[in-house]
Amino acid sequence: MPYARNTLPLPIEWAHCDPVGIVWNPHIFEFFDTGTWTLFQTALGVPRARINAHFGILGLALAESGASFMAPLTFGDQAEIESEVVEFRRSSFSVAHRIVKNGKLAVDGLEKRVWAIPHPDDPQRMTTKPIPDEVIEKFRR
Amino acid sequence: MPYARNTLPLPIEWAHCDPVGIVWNPHIFEFFDTGTWTLFQTALGVPRARINAHFGILGLALAESGASFMAPLTFGDQAEIESEVVEFRRSSFSVAHRIVKNGKLAVDGLEKRVWAIPHPDDPQRMTTKPIPDEVIEKFRR
Amino acid sequence: MPYARNTLPLPIEWAHCDPVGIVWNPHIFEFFDTGTWTLFQTALGVPRARINAHFGILGLALAESGASFMAPLTFGDQAEIESEVVEFRRSSFSVAHRIVKNGKLAVDGLEKRVWAIPHPDDPQRMTTKPIPDEVIEKFRR
Amino acid sequence: MPYARNTLPLPIEWAHCDPVGIVWNPHIFEFFDTGTWTLFQTALGVPRARINAHFGILGLALAESGASFMAPLTFGDQAEIESEVVEFRRSSFSVAHRIVKNGKLAVDGLEKRVWAIPHPDDPQRMTTKPIPDEVIEKFRR
Repeated sequence: MPYARNTLPLPIEWAHCDPVGIVWNPHIFEFFDTGTWTLFQTALGVPRARINAHFGILGLALAESGASFMAPLTFGDQAEIESEVVEFRRSSFSVAHRIVKNGKLAVDGLEKRVWAIPHPDDPQRMTTKPIPDEVIEKFRR
Repeated sequence: MPYARNTLPLPIEWAHCDPVGIVWNPHIFEFFDTGTWTLFQTALGVPRARINAHFGILGLALAESGASFMAPLTFGDQAEIESEVVEFRRSSFSVAHRIVKNGKLAVDGLEKRVWAIPHPDDPQRMTTKPIPDEVIEKFRR
Repeated sequence: MPYARNTLPLPIEWAHCDPVGIVWNPHIFEFFDTGTWTLFQTALGVPRARINAHFGILGLALAESGASFMAPLTFGDQAEIESEVVEFRRSSFSVAHRIVKNGKLAVDGLEKRVWAIPHPDDPQRMTTKPIPDEVIEKFRR
Repeated sequence: MPYARNTLPLPIEWAHCDPVGIVWNPHIFEFFDTGTWTLFQTALGVPRARINAHFGILGLALAESGASFMAPLTFGDQAEIESEVVEFRRSSFSVAHRIVKNGKLAVDGLEKRVWAIPHPDDPQRMTTKPIPDEVIEKFRR
């Protein structure tokens, strides 16, 4: 059974584009991040800015991220980003992101994130914690 | 008689925030840019990505920009940016931007931009050209 | 007697440039920020990442920022940014930034910043505090 | 025989950090880009801003990019980025990037890029071309 997914409109602005006139790739990873926060907001029913405090975590810390760039995105495009948890593990999970333009896949990405808390021995460091069952349950609805 | 103005929703994302947890100021200037392009799209009735080609210009080149930061914007805020041309001069114009959060002014900004074309003697350089009357007229509607 | 100033090399990268091939203006405000932190590190003799903790402040919060763009900066330029406190007031100060390329002023900017602390009644809010004399003294040397 | 590699100092600035106080991941992909351009400048002996014109290409277009985040980078860190071509194929190549802090690997990344030219039938589109032998030869020195 698939987990919750979320789609956000993604208007492409001058602010996103590089000297070739296409979206500068680091912005793609910004879009992924906003996609993940919004997906969690939608699935958990907690405003995205309160998720960390609500669950007592430091955040949904990024462990790995990758993208394949299939088609260029350019100024004025009305794209969309679809974000979906594809796997929950004990204390980490993976989010797939697909940026679609005119029905065509432009960017295919995957983030691996961890459920991060402050390290008990050193609050400056981060460690992980099992993802609560209630979180995973909410993604099943 | 005032010129056309435009309001855009401005959701504040994790992607925008700095170590203090408030919007990192360079993003404010990105928001101004998107505000200006969208205002021109709305007033001129030309898709923002086609304005340069439509009028044979290099762009709405920024000559000066400034902002006053009155109240912090933080992750999850549902702000708005109101953009308005406050003056047209021969070959330049000024756009005022106000970012409002919960009915309160958070950022007050002003851009001065020029109607820029390639320099006739050296296409690598930029020069300015008088703003066409038809452009100014459309902002009056 | 002028206050301490600091000059940083500023290589212009592809990462900084927009569809016209010149530095995208929000990056200019990033450069200003790095200029200010590095100036304070140099004048105070405290690593820039420890200044906030050392003086018990939230930061050098930006109240106003502005720039005039005189000449374009393009990929591969070896520019420099000169940063200088031009005025200390009770709890605020102004930093002038000049980005110079081939001996020519490309960008002229001014930041107004405040010596910010957490508000005593509400640590979520920011208030200001007089700048310690020892800070101003160090800029005089 | 390994190909040329290049190391760049990577001072971490306030400008790079997110609300948790660590480098915001999209900046990592900016660092990779600057690493690649600087590596090509060093290996080819052509200023990085003139590489496209020199070889008649649109650019070193990014096809895939990925990173693993092993240790956080924070404001004030003096890190380094080591960039190295790990494989040349007919019209594409892979660049490995390692960001090292205090002798420890903080970020491990890989970019796949293509030798991109304008499509002969439609200059708005991009296609690829075999990488010239002279380019590969210069990386062998």
